[in-house]
Amino acid sequence: MLGNFTYCNPTKLYFGDASLQYLNAELLKYGKNVVLIYGGGSIKRNGIYDEVTEILKAAGKNVAEISGVMPNPTLEKLYEGIEIARGHHADLLLAVGGGSVCDYAKAVSVSVNCEEDPWEKYYLRFEEPTCEIVPVGCILTMVGTGSEMNAGAVITNRETKMKIGHVFADEAIMPRFSILNPKYTLTLPPYQMVSGIYDIFNHICEQYFSGEDDNTSDYLSEGLMRSVIHSSRIAVKDPQNYEARSNLMWTATWALNTLVSRGKSTDWMVHMLGQAVGAHTDATHGMTLAAVSLPYYRYIMPYGLAKFIRFAKNVWDVDASGKSDEQVAAEGLNAMENWMKELGLVMNITELGVSEEMLEDLAQSTLIQTDGYKVLDHDEIVEIFRNSL
Amino acid sequence: MLGNFTYCNPTKLYFGDASLQYLNAELLKYGKNVVLIYGGGSIKRNGIYDEVTEILKAAGKNVAEISGVMPNPTLEKLYEGIEIARGHHADLLLAVGGGSVCDYAKAVSVSVNCEEDPWEKYYLRFEEPTCEIVPVGCILTMVGTGSEMNAGAVITNRETKMKIGHVFADEAIMPRFSILNPKYTLTLPPYQMVSGIYDIFNHICEQYFSGEDDNTSDYLSEGLMRSVIHSSRIAVKDPQNYEARSNLMWTATWALNTLVSRGKSTDWMVHMLGQAVGAHTDATHGMTLAAVSLPYYRYIMPYGLAKFIRFAKNVWDVDASGKSDEQVAAEGLNAMENWMKELGLVMNITELGVSEEMLEDLAQSTLIQTDGYKVLDHDEIVEIFRNSL
Repeated sequence: MLGNFTYCNPTKLYFGDASLQYLNAELLKYGKNVVLIYGGGSIKRNGIYDEVTEILKAAGKNVAEISGVMPNPTLEKLYEGIEIARGHHADLLLAVGGGSVCDYAKAVSVSVNCEEDPWEKYYLRFEEPTCEIVPVGCILTMVGTGSEMNAGAVITNRETKMKIGHVFADEAIMPRFSILNPKYTLTLPPYQMVSGIYDIFNHICEQYFSGEDDNTSDYLSEGLMRSVIHSSRIAVKDPQNYEARSNLMWTATWALNTLVSRGKSTDWMVHMLGQAVGAHTDATHGMTLAAVSLPYYRYIMPYGLAKFIRFAKNVWDVDASGKSDEQVAAEGLNAMENWMKELGLVMNITELGVSEEMLEDLAQSTLIQTDGYKVLDHDEIVEIFRNSL
Repeated sequence: MLGNFTYCNPTKLYFGDASLQYLNAELLKYGKNVVLIYGGGSIKRNGIYDEVTEILKAAGKNVAEISGVMPNPTLEKLYEGIEIARGHHADLLLAVGGGSVCDYAKAVSVSVNCEEDPWEKYYLRFEEPTCEIVPVGCILTMVGTGSEMNAGAVITNRETKMKIGHVFADEAIMPRFSILNPKYTLTLPPYQMVSGIYDIFNHICEQYFSGEDDNTSDYLSEGLMRSVIHSSRIAVKDPQNYEARSNLMWTATWALNTLVSRGKSTDWMVHMLGQAVGAHTDATHGMTLAAVSLPYYRYIMPYGLAKFIRFAKNVWDVDASGKSDEQVAAEGLNAMENWMKELGLVMNITELGVSEEMLEDLAQSTLIQTDGYKVLDHDEIVEIFRNSL
């Protein structure tokens, strides 16, 4: 840990199959006016909506609703939510859903009392809020993004075709509390489940594969990766396995709450490549990452060989004896490939709707990162996309 | 993660060789009256005292002092500190030192506004505070206890010969901020350094060696243990290696801030055995743990064999091929023994001043834990102490 850094993460987590019982105690801390925020209505079908509204009612809360928050929350939807929260004089924004709903609630929380346009202030100028922030609580129903314990909020501007994530610096923007009940994730379709699992794994990879220093964060990352690999193998064969799903839920939170990036550089290039694919195909986020990550990591491997050797040994138990460094590193990525196939992840962008003639456009809309083992140029990005076909 | 649990840790950490610069921004959040708390005066010799008081002066603070906080802070000293903090109308308690000074500051923080006797309320009845808590900030100069990011506070009552630790449930008792500057730890004598290193490692072991479930916390523990082993080998050869010392500082914080015990049982039996040795010999805490831990773990190994096999493979890279389960598990503990000898730890209680005829007394004063792989009876404790001679 050579650099200087800060760490603060005050979100209170309630974890387990009985964790919703703590909602009542949390509600006592906030005023009467609650805005309940959710997505497409699956929480109405699986009974979570009824459970939550009953608790809100028993607590005497005055509830308004923002429903229909989409997988990539739009700026239009944000404006709509701000108006509802303002009109309701919201004391608490209660998000019930996955990462998009949590992200959206955080974006509303910093905008309700903001006199400027939030898109310009937070997403174009990347400023921190200067107004009072409305507290956010989360009840998580999907696993992967880590939004339940961080200060990130991605918003999409459909008009300008820009999807921008702002990870705020102020820990006050993190949810005050998050309720993590693994039971709520059991009904997710397998495609979404494995997509979320790869999202978790890749979050860790993008913080791990950068930097040459000796850093405790990398050891924590290796522990988390081993846990994801182990539990995912159980969950993909037996999606109803509560223990495996609970481990995945917990690793997702810790994979992206800033812990494993402390004191080191990070390289979010796979997210940039994947998001370009997503923008052109509307494919599921985790699958876009899965489809481009191995071609990317194989391309940069020679430039960060020591870390890839470490990955092979410490994460995949590759036996290095009698092998060249390159062989060991390659075997690590091969082991990762086998695991990804075992999960049934999408392993190429062709399957996601990308064709040869789209590659130039994709590369054009890929934001280049500068903290990886190799800073890519346009032609290299095209080559990686071609290797991903 | 099968159980239900909560996690909340709001302490803001400032880490690095330039981290003291953030003290000023933190001071702005609190009132004028600061009580500076420190130990035996080493901070006066190494210049930290001057640096800190200069910042306090520049911030216009009205400073009182509690000095002479001893390695095992006594109840008498606690009463003295309460009076000073009350008389000064303290807005902030600023601890500068190691775990004892941090522990002491937390004990004062819950007692200043407490109308009952703190020893009876917090250490005999184990109650939570019902009064207003005075905020605590820490500037850490020694590594090991994790007190900088948890709600624990150990106090010793010399009159009744009781040393009791209370880990408070309320996260408000955790330090508001802690400044972790690895440079401050470079001047520590080697004996204290390796003793602290073993304290870190053993904190992780005591949370790891318990339970049969499948838990992400154990993967995080393995990562932290690997990091401690790796960095300790560098630090013991080259104590001035900033990077190794910084990794050790960071692992110490995460080894005991509740993260790696989430969702699982823990077994603090080594601490109980070690504390009994400490009570009869006044030996250094980490060394008492080192001297009893292998005899304890070898004794309970058959009862928790699966976890000891996992420890051997995942922490010590023991090659299991062609070996019996017992062999693999034993090789893990042998590897741990070799590492401990490499560090120069005290490997037996004889060297700490314990003789054969003291064993019955030691066993008598050892508090039995019930969440380990084997609940020990008196004779077994005597046997483990005998194996530690």
